[in-house]
Amino acid sequence: MKKILIFDTTLRDGSQGAGISFSVEDKIKIAKALDNFGIDYIEGGWPGSNPKDELFFAQAKKLRFKNAKLTAFGSTRRKGCPANDDKSLRAIVDSGVKTACIFGKTWDLHVRYALKTTNEENLKMIADSVSFLKSKKIEVIYDAEHFFDGYKNNKEYALQTIKAAWDAGASLVCMCETNGGMLPSDIQKIIGEVKNVFPEMRLGIHTHNDSGCAVANSITAVEEGCIMVQGTVNGLGERCGNANLCSIIPGLQIKRNYKCVPAASLPKLTELSRYVDEIANIVPNDSKPYVGRNAFAHKAGIHVSAIERQSETYEHISPNLVGNERRILVSDLSGKSNVMSKAGEMALGLDKVSENAGKVIETVKNMENQGYQYEDADGSFFLLTKKALEDFKPFFKLKGYRVAVEKSSEGKIVSEATVKLDIKGKEEHTVAEGEGPVNALDNCLRKALVEYYPEIKNIVLTDFKVRVINSEANTAAKVRVLIESSDSAKTWGTIGVNENIIDASWQALSDAVEYKLLKENKVKSNK
Amino acid sequence: MKKILIFDTTLRDGSQGAGISFSVEDKIKIAKALDNFGIDYIEGGWPGSNPKDELFFAQAKKLRFKNAKLTAFGSTRRKGCPANDDKSLRAIVDSGVKTACIFGKTWDLHVRYALKTTNEENLKMIADSVSFLKSKKIEVIYDAEHFFDGYKNNKEYALQTIKAAWDAGASLVCMCETNGGMLPSDIQKIIGEVKNVFPEMRLGIHTHNDSGCAVANSITAVEEGCIMVQGTVNGLGERCGNANLCSIIPGLQIKRNYKCVPAASLPKLTELSRYVDEIANIVPNDSKPYVGRNAFAHKAGIHVSAIERQSETYEHISPNLVGNERRILVSDLSGKSNVMSKAGEMALGLDKVSENAGKVIETVKNMENQGYQYEDADGSFFLLTKKALEDFKPFFKLKGYRVAVEKSSEGKIVSEATVKLDIKGKEEHTVAEGEGPVNALDNCLRKALVEYYPEIKNIVLTDFKVRVINSEANTAAKVRVLIESSDSAKTWGTIGVNENIIDASWQALSDAVEYKLLKENKVKSNK
Repeated sequence: MKKILIFDTTLRDGSQGAGISFSVEDKIKIAKALDNFGIDYIEGGWPGSNPKDELFFAQAKKLRFKNAKLTAFGSTRRKGCPANDDKSLRAIVDSGVKTACIFGKTWDLHVRYALKTTNEENLKMIADSVSFLKSKKIEVIYDAEHFFDGYKNNKEYALQTIKAAWDAGASLVCMCETNGGMLPSDIQKIIGEVKNVFPEMRLGIHTHNDSGCAVANSITAVEEGCIMVQGTVNGLGERCGNANLCSIIPGLQIKRNYKCVPAASLPKLTELSRYVDEIANIVPNDSKPYVGRNAFAHKAGIHVSAIERQSETYEHISPNLVGNERRILVSDLSGKSNVMSKAGEMALGLDKVSENAGKVIETVKNMENQGYQYEDADGSFFLLTKKALEDFKPFFKLKGYRVAVEKSSEGKIVSEATVKLDIKGKEEHTVAEGEGPVNALDNCLRKALVEYYPEIKNIVLTDFKVRVINSEANTAAKVRVLIESSDSAKTWGTIGVNENIIDASWQALSDAVEYKLLKENKVKSNK
Repeated sequence: MKKILIFDTTLRDGSQGAGISFSVEDKIKIAKALDNFGIDYIEGGWPGSNPKDELFFAQAKKLRFKNAKLTAFGSTRRKGCPANDDKSLRAIVDSGVKTACIFGKTWDLHVRYALKTTNEENLKMIADSVSFLKSKKIEVIYDAEHFFDGYKNNKEYALQTIKAAWDAGASLVCMCETNGGMLPSDIQKIIGEVKNVFPEMRLGIHTHNDSGCAVANSITAVEEGCIMVQGTVNGLGERCGNANLCSIIPGLQIKRNYKCVPAASLPKLTELSRYVDEIANIVPNDSKPYVGRNAFAHKAGIHVSAIERQSETYEHISPNLVGNERRILVSDLSGKSNVMSKAGEMALGLDKVSENAGKVIETVKNMENQGYQYEDADGSFFLLTKKALEDFKPFFKLKGYRVAVEKSSEGKIVSEATVKLDIKGKEEHTVAEGEGPVNALDNCLRKALVEYYPEIKNIVLTDFKVRVINSEANTAAKVRVLIESSDSAKTWGTIGVNENIIDASWQALSDAVEYKLLKENKVKSNK
């Protein structure tokens, strides 16, 4: 098993992504998680470029990493300035790191237009900067910016720049695909040629996803001889993102037998991915390879029946290898096997009593014809099954509700709801306001129930989606409301369908609460 | 320029994606957009597998495509059953298409466990099915399911299956990477070998994104000799999605000089991508290559100043090649070209008075920051521009509204709205009921206005979409309502954003009416 060094730049390049703003505390948390996961290098930021990164390195000095080398980013010295006097290089030394990753220009066009200097001076800037950091006992990874574009435009000069870094003592030359536009055959061809010229040079790859090929380009680079991959968790990064380590690591380790991280870490990959999304406050992309919520979700009926028999038929790897899980979606494209398998997954005990399966499928079909859809509404599916099997006693009964929204001439908007419920034989009549009519209804329902069922307190409404579904005629368009709720342990979806958006929301809200109550009451104890 | 056939399966394989549920009307709309864009084959569904797909093909018969061949999906005949008696194949014939794409088994493991038949019978099933459809004058694309896994497990048999299809008269053999787990070097190696064995065979590629390499795998396949790419708009599809045509088409056409779509279509790629997301009611992924809102977004700093000087320094292609635009995230330049071109498109005469353009851009930016989005809200954009230019006098003024929804213990739901308006100096106070609160509000608004403006009578509300948007600050979740309205001549979209769904709906409803009034009153006559 050949070792591939994993260099994470979530905290530096990843933080350039639109909408991402890590606090120093966030960065410390992510750095710890990356170290625990077994990442080799963690690039923490660019000391000297902004106060936040400086503070991070100051605090990071106190951390004791188990595996990782904390790395500072920086650039080669300015033109015409001795390395020893260069502020940016000095800031790296002052940050206290043992490894630095410094970038320099590869593309002669950039030397001319961005640096406004000569090709010769740029080579000196590279060599001086590497030597200087080495003299301070700092390992230097040289990041060749725009390597592939530069190589395509002026091969000889591009090769001179990385030779300058290597000869000056860089431990590794990382070829940076800065603009992200290369396709795998570019990477294959160019790295092949570089390896021919410099067979001894230790090479790394850093890609961006502008052509949609960052993962493939990174993997191709390793197959061509690179021994380091730079990327970010979930592919966070500017524009279309950096290379996604959550796709690259399992690709190399499971499919090509390279060693990227300790074997015991791979099953924690999904957890790492979700943790970083959470800290970045990003709604996770469910269709992410390997770690997405839908990465092993199956909808088509024929697929599901095949998977039940033999999992490799429609799964490229076993989901538990990366800590993910299989999901069976219940949809209108589904057959009996989807419903049965979903029921099995939710521990509904349906397979034992197969004469009941028909009842449930009948009910699902009937509801789907009315516009219900259960693939994101596992909570409602659970309740529906229980009800179809007559294994359900309601926790409360609606006697009526009323929702009012009023906008005054001054523009002030007030939303108020009243709900009348029968709970355990007692009538509860409550009123509440909210941000909008649905929120008011939600508040009102909880207010009525909380005395009887305090366990509903920790339910949080995490998503709310509305869609108009077209019936044949254009008169009575129905509205489908999907709600996602969470407590500390779990997330579940519920659904409501009606011509009236308020009533569709009511159905989804009350299902959300009933599902929670049913689960808390151990499914059957309420009977 | 070598032609590559583009085969879109958004309506079939794409509809398998979690959370996707296209109505027949949705499918017709997307099919029209794909045809206009210049797609070669549009796979509409699987006739005989479900009533929705059958209805689609029945309705699609009335469509006249300019470029595309409408294609039906299906499978090879059942074992031991003559092709002529096979329901699935007959359904394809009955659907009236001129092209079919039928899948068959490549992997002997599947022949044994899924079909439960012999390798020989499977070969006959393939040949018979292709011959049968050919005898009905239907072009047949043969879809070799699990081609790459099958080939790795039993190369000889995999090759026999595609030979059976080709010899029986398939116009093309599409190698399907069903489980999506291959890496580019697998694709490269296997297709190279297949091309060696069958140099004359016309080959296509169909990939899924489970290893994060669907785009790269498709492009690699073309470089190895495939002449058809199957994929979906935005990579919609089960699990991690299908190959994303919005990344593959520009990759092949801009970077490798293949011809996928007419040259004039490429600048409409971003529009196509957003249109399909909108119909699918999916929050667009902003970091999608080429077409994402952030694909050419730059955070302030060294990149931005370099881009100002020379765009190729940090952009792999010019954004306008695919109809996208550069965004400078912390500067004043964002959106100008979009705003200007939109204004030109709507004959707002903005380009003539360029000192006013700044005002409009300022207003648009301000509204966008609040969550408004004008791509599908041309009516609201028109009004906003008129207001920003102080070229607008309101047709009515809201003094207040009140909306109530009441559900009784018998389950009866009543929605009632009252509206108080100032119209031409007179106060009108009206009440109306409706199917739901928004419908009641709509009825009430019309009731108040119709005496003064009888031209509003023929406005029909044709679509209503709601989405929860997270503001950047992440405090209060806002709701975005998009309404589509039509009269006999035209369709227009309007938008509203608020924490309260009723008020967001009110904004969109009143914009819809005001836009109509403004257009009817010849834009300026009201001044």
